[in-house]
Amino acid sequence: MKIAVMGTGLIGQAWAIVFARAGLPVKLWDGNNEALQNATAIIAKQLQELQTQGLVNHAADALSNIKIASTLEQALEGVDYVQENLPEDAAIKRTFYALIDTMAAPETILASSTSSIPASVFTESLAGRHRCLVAHPVNPPYLVPVVELCVSPWTSPNVLERTKSLMNLVNQKPITVNREVEGFVLNRLQGALLREAFRLVENGVVSVQDLDTTVKDGLGLRWSFMGPFETIDLNAPNGLKDYCERYGPMYQSIAAEQSHTEPWSDDLINEAEKQRRQQLPHNQLLNRRLWRDERLMALIKHKLEHEESNK
Amino acid sequence: MKIAVMGTGLIGQAWAIVFARAGLPVKLWDGNNEALQNATAIIAKQLQELQTQGLVNHAADALSNIKIASTLEQALEGVDYVQENLPEDAAIKRTFYALIDTMAAPETILASSTSSIPASVFTESLAGRHRCLVAHPVNPPYLVPVVELCVSPWTSPNVLERTKSLMNLVNQKPITVNREVEGFVLNRLQGALLREAFRLVENGVVSVQDLDTTVKDGLGLRWSFMGPFETIDLNAPNGLKDYCERYGPMYQSIAAEQSHTEPWSDDLINEAEKQRRQQLPHNQLLNRRLWRDERLMALIKHKLEHEESNK
Repeated sequence: MKIAVMGTGLIGQAWAIVFARAGLPVKLWDGNNEALQNATAIIAKQLQELQTQGLVNHAADALSNIKIASTLEQALEGVDYVQENLPEDAAIKRTFYALIDTMAAPETILASSTSSIPASVFTESLAGRHRCLVAHPVNPPYLVPVVELCVSPWTSPNVLERTKSLMNLVNQKPITVNREVEGFVLNRLQGALLREAFRLVENGVVSVQDLDTTVKDGLGLRWSFMGPFETIDLNAPNGLKDYCERYGPMYQSIAAEQSHTEPWSDDLINEAEKQRRQQLPHNQLLNRRLWRDERLMALIKHKLEHEESNK
Repeated sequence: MKIAVMGTGLIGQAWAIVFARAGLPVKLWDGNNEALQNATAIIAKQLQELQTQGLVNHAADALSNIKIASTLEQALEGVDYVQENLPEDAAIKRTFYALIDTMAAPETILASSTSSIPASVFTESLAGRHRCLVAHPVNPPYLVPVVELCVSPWTSPNVLERTKSLMNLVNQKPITVNREVEGFVLNRLQGALLREAFRLVENGVVSVQDLDTTVKDGLGLRWSFMGPFETIDLNAPNGLKDYCERYGPMYQSIAAEQSHTEPWSDDLINEAEKQRRQQLPHNQLLNRRLWRDERLMALIKHKLEHEESNK
């Protein structure tokens, strides 16, 4: 499989790392030549850091898989898969896909990293619309493996299957979103939990800090290696259905109080922001992001070691 | 601090381990003498396992802190804190608290492990109702540190503070639930996420397996060491408020589709159960629970090492 990564901002850079560390040849392209030149230096630095952390074996080998393409023609020549990372703007994507659909070989898959625009919005009128889909990563994909593959009504099953195989090949974890829904799956789940979290703060039930503790020292532990369905499946003697019989009524009773859909008020957002700044001053945000990235790398390494030993 | 653990089922056994491994003297009591005799053997075995996993330094020392009390009088004599783990039955708790409130020294804190009955339900008429509260653990508390401290309208602030200090002393992570709400905080958050998870499966958007992957290989990673508020606080350049300005409208738009409160239908539960059994046959549930416990222990050890190195 030969890959083209188009658009070399943060997401494009991260995708290049994902494919290159798995040994696949990657061509990098960007409409902005300066961005393109900068990208390779940043990728080299990130690969080095991943090697230091034990998450990449040979940074130099990985880097050598990445080549710059100075034209769109060069980028598309002979590639099997395009990962597009242009700005989140339907008009830009529409124009770009119209262009690459005429230029790319007929079997080349065209996948978009978009988090918010369904593929149908920018592929409907294309001759090759069956080979287009969304492959939405979580940032950065070289650390967080899940990739949401969201098909449009005309994406061919074969294109979906080939994209899944590619993602598995490069050690990502593809999931299939069968219909174009806003937020795909991950952000819909995040939204549902955030909504209850904000509501509990608004109602004075719990502080922002204590809510985070409830998740990081409680609820989030099993979810980080099992997910919510397996968690409940193992939390009742006879599995998921048994769990639903035992605890369904409680959740149903709670749900009746969770149904309001008013927007988060300015007062509520200001209160949550105030509590966060008491825990972490604004000038510490950057340092704390570095801490987060280190913790994430350590967690991923921990998970890889345990998944390896479970095979 | 001297502790009495009352009711020696799974939760009571686990609480005994929490207090004893922190070096506190623990008296075990149970209305059923056979259960009481069995409990010590199970506790000894669990402590040994925790030592093997590197989560307890000296299992034998910890075990030596635990003594059996053959009467309620003996159990309550000279203790500062009672952790009650009787069945989830309001009538049983009402009778029991009326009894121990008259027997325990005036300053002794009476805390219940209940996950579903607010303290006000079984303490209202007690002379010492100010010293009663809920201290709800996640099972097993010797691995999952969060403890939800839920006060009743008459719990004294001093009792709450002393209970918090005790929980911190024994390396648990106490959070305060300021009002008696159903499900406290943890199960309300779990319910909100499960609701969206079931809804996505019901609507054919995603499979049970792929939904779990979305969480365990995506959303759940950061939550396992940061929680949801810190996650969004670090996911926009200027923090939480900035994040809400950028993504609030998307979550608001999604929320409008998440507000229905119909119960999970039998068809839906059966479908989810079917998909789980395809992944994990019924006769593998027990083995998979052992796997889960090993993974949880490994994760906790990983987290402890990283929290230690961040001090």
